[in-house]
Amino acid sequence: MTDEFDLIKTYFKPLAGSEGLGLIDDAACLQPTAGFDLVITKDVLVSDIHFLSDDPADTIAHKALAVNLSDLAAKGAKPKYYLLGLTLPQDIQSSWLAEFAQGLKGLQDATGCKLIGGDTTSSKTGCIVISITAIGEVAENTMITRAGANKGDDVFVTGTLGDAALGLGVRSGDLVSDGEFLVSRYLKPKPRNELGVSLVGTVSASADISDGLLADLGHICTASNLSATIYEDLLPVSRSAEDVLKKHPSCRSLVWSGGDDYELVFTAPKAARDKIQEKSNDFNVLITRIGHIDVGNGVKLLDDAGNSVTVENTGFKHF
Amino acid sequence: MTDEFDLIKTYFKPLAGSEGLGLIDDAACLQPTAGFDLVITKDVLVSDIHFLSDDPADTIAHKALAVNLSDLAAKGAKPKYYLLGLTLPQDIQSSWLAEFAQGLKGLQDATGCKLIGGDTTSSKTGCIVISITAIGEVAENTMITRAGANKGDDVFVTGTLGDAALGLGVRSGDLVSDGEFLVSRYLKPKPRNELGVSLVGTVSASADISDGLLADLGHICTASNLSATIYEDLLPVSRSAEDVLKKHPSCRSLVWSGGDDYELVFTAPKAARDKIQEKSNDFNVLITRIGHIDVGNGVKLLDDAGNSVTVENTGFKHF
Repeated sequence: MTDEFDLIKTYFKPLAGSEGLGLIDDAACLQPTAGFDLVITKDVLVSDIHFLSDDPADTIAHKALAVNLSDLAAKGAKPKYYLLGLTLPQDIQSSWLAEFAQGLKGLQDATGCKLIGGDTTSSKTGCIVISITAIGEVAENTMITRAGANKGDDVFVTGTLGDAALGLGVRSGDLVSDGEFLVSRYLKPKPRNELGVSLVGTVSASADISDGLLADLGHICTASNLSATIYEDLLPVSRSAEDVLKKHPSCRSLVWSGGDDYELVFTAPKAARDKIQEKSNDFNVLITRIGHIDVGNGVKLLDDAGNSVTVENTGFKHF
Repeated sequence: MTDEFDLIKTYFKPLAGSEGLGLIDDAACLQPTAGFDLVITKDVLVSDIHFLSDDPADTIAHKALAVNLSDLAAKGAKPKYYLLGLTLPQDIQSSWLAEFAQGLKGLQDATGCKLIGGDTTSSKTGCIVISITAIGEVAENTMITRAGANKGDDVFVTGTLGDAALGLGVRSGDLVSDGEFLVSRYLKPKPRNELGVSLVGTVSASADISDGLLADLGHICTASNLSATIYEDLLPVSRSAEDVLKKHPSCRSLVWSGGDDYELVFTAPKAARDKIQEKSNDFNVLITRIGHIDVGNGVKLLDDAGNSVTVENTGFKHF
């Protein structure tokens, strides 16, 4: 392995936007666009917590960037830039790094964001830690927050739920699925950036689903000081997920508590239903109405008999 | 230990600026100041690489923020915001976290920057990884780069050199020093932010000294496509460092190759000498002229007989 400066020059300089000054300075320099706010998020991924050490390096990179872009999507911000903090084992291979850079490039090209800086360090314990800071733009004072839900709003989710958690089970050998769909949902989540940008002005609150539907909708409720009621039989489940759940019915709760789908959960006034259906068509993204917002606090999940589903786990706990 | 949301609420929310939206949203939202560029840097610190696991938690936090603010100082940018990515062992203690937050608060209060977001995760290997992204402002098109040095410019450094590397030796028990000065220079570096902001418009290129004088001046030379000649007997050495070096003369090279001092090395036209002396007085920071910029490439270090000093190590290599 060459030194960190050669490593940056070989693998990361080709990914850099001009604001990164060739990745040879102490910092990047941005000229903000007049009339826009900057939306900034930072998510950290750690080996054997957020991904498996033997996941392909391009999918690890894709996921590390995707989870940050997903935060921007939830806020309605267009991705512009990112910084990469990379902590690697001292014996990391060049081929791993080349593949990692390739994974970043694929998602950069798909979303239009550029690398502008970062830091590369070694670790003595062999852990891989990827810390990305992503920066997007949104017209001033229009960022969608978690705090904007109102009583009577509908609750929507994009895509299907539980796929990534089931995909992790398949990848770990605990579950069996025909086809690659579930594993690909775990390995290479697709952030909803184009749709997210289009939701500005239409939706009242939004979050991305990283910790699981109940946990993330719960964050919207807490921030908005309201409650949500959602219906189990409205939750969108993919055909691949249904196939696995038929064989493993005890995994059903992953639909509402499994993390890592990186879909959006958002609220909107009833008057916006048609507009939201149009957006679903325009962007070819399934959008499903799953419940509503009310006074009170917490998230209530009702089964088809109208009984509360007992929820044991509402998201991964680190500590 | 409580869960990560309680942890954020207890220890980090008190440090947050309003742009961080109470640290309960997916992202922060900044309204850039008209007429200013944003300067953004990201440095990652890893246990047993950048700090010792048993260093006091407040000094670890101080250092993690300081090294990022030092990058802003080198660019002439005023610190405004930072995001904190924190990867911790699963059995981390509340007392460690309280002390860590205290260390951040001390440097926030001293420099005026605010926490606006981040992420807290666990690691299974027990390593601590702190990834900070710091954001500063500078009047548009005035950021000091590494690439602006010109032939004939003077080379200056702030403060004294080699203290932190010697301090690490003292802390590790390899070296003996009376007093706390060297160890405090290692544990709690003071970024030169006020001075740095004042250098905009006066200096031609600047970097902070994180990898060692020769390495960081080398970065200026590479970016500017020029060379530097500096003189060993002009390099500023503290009294505490001289005391240790008398006993351990073989450590002398740490003055030019030791990292972690977080002083500034900068270049300026000869016509700016008086102005730079004034700034030294105004901010009560020692500023020493140590050499000059010329055509060619690389950094030449000359001893008092005018011979090149052989340099074996120009900075820590991670890989």
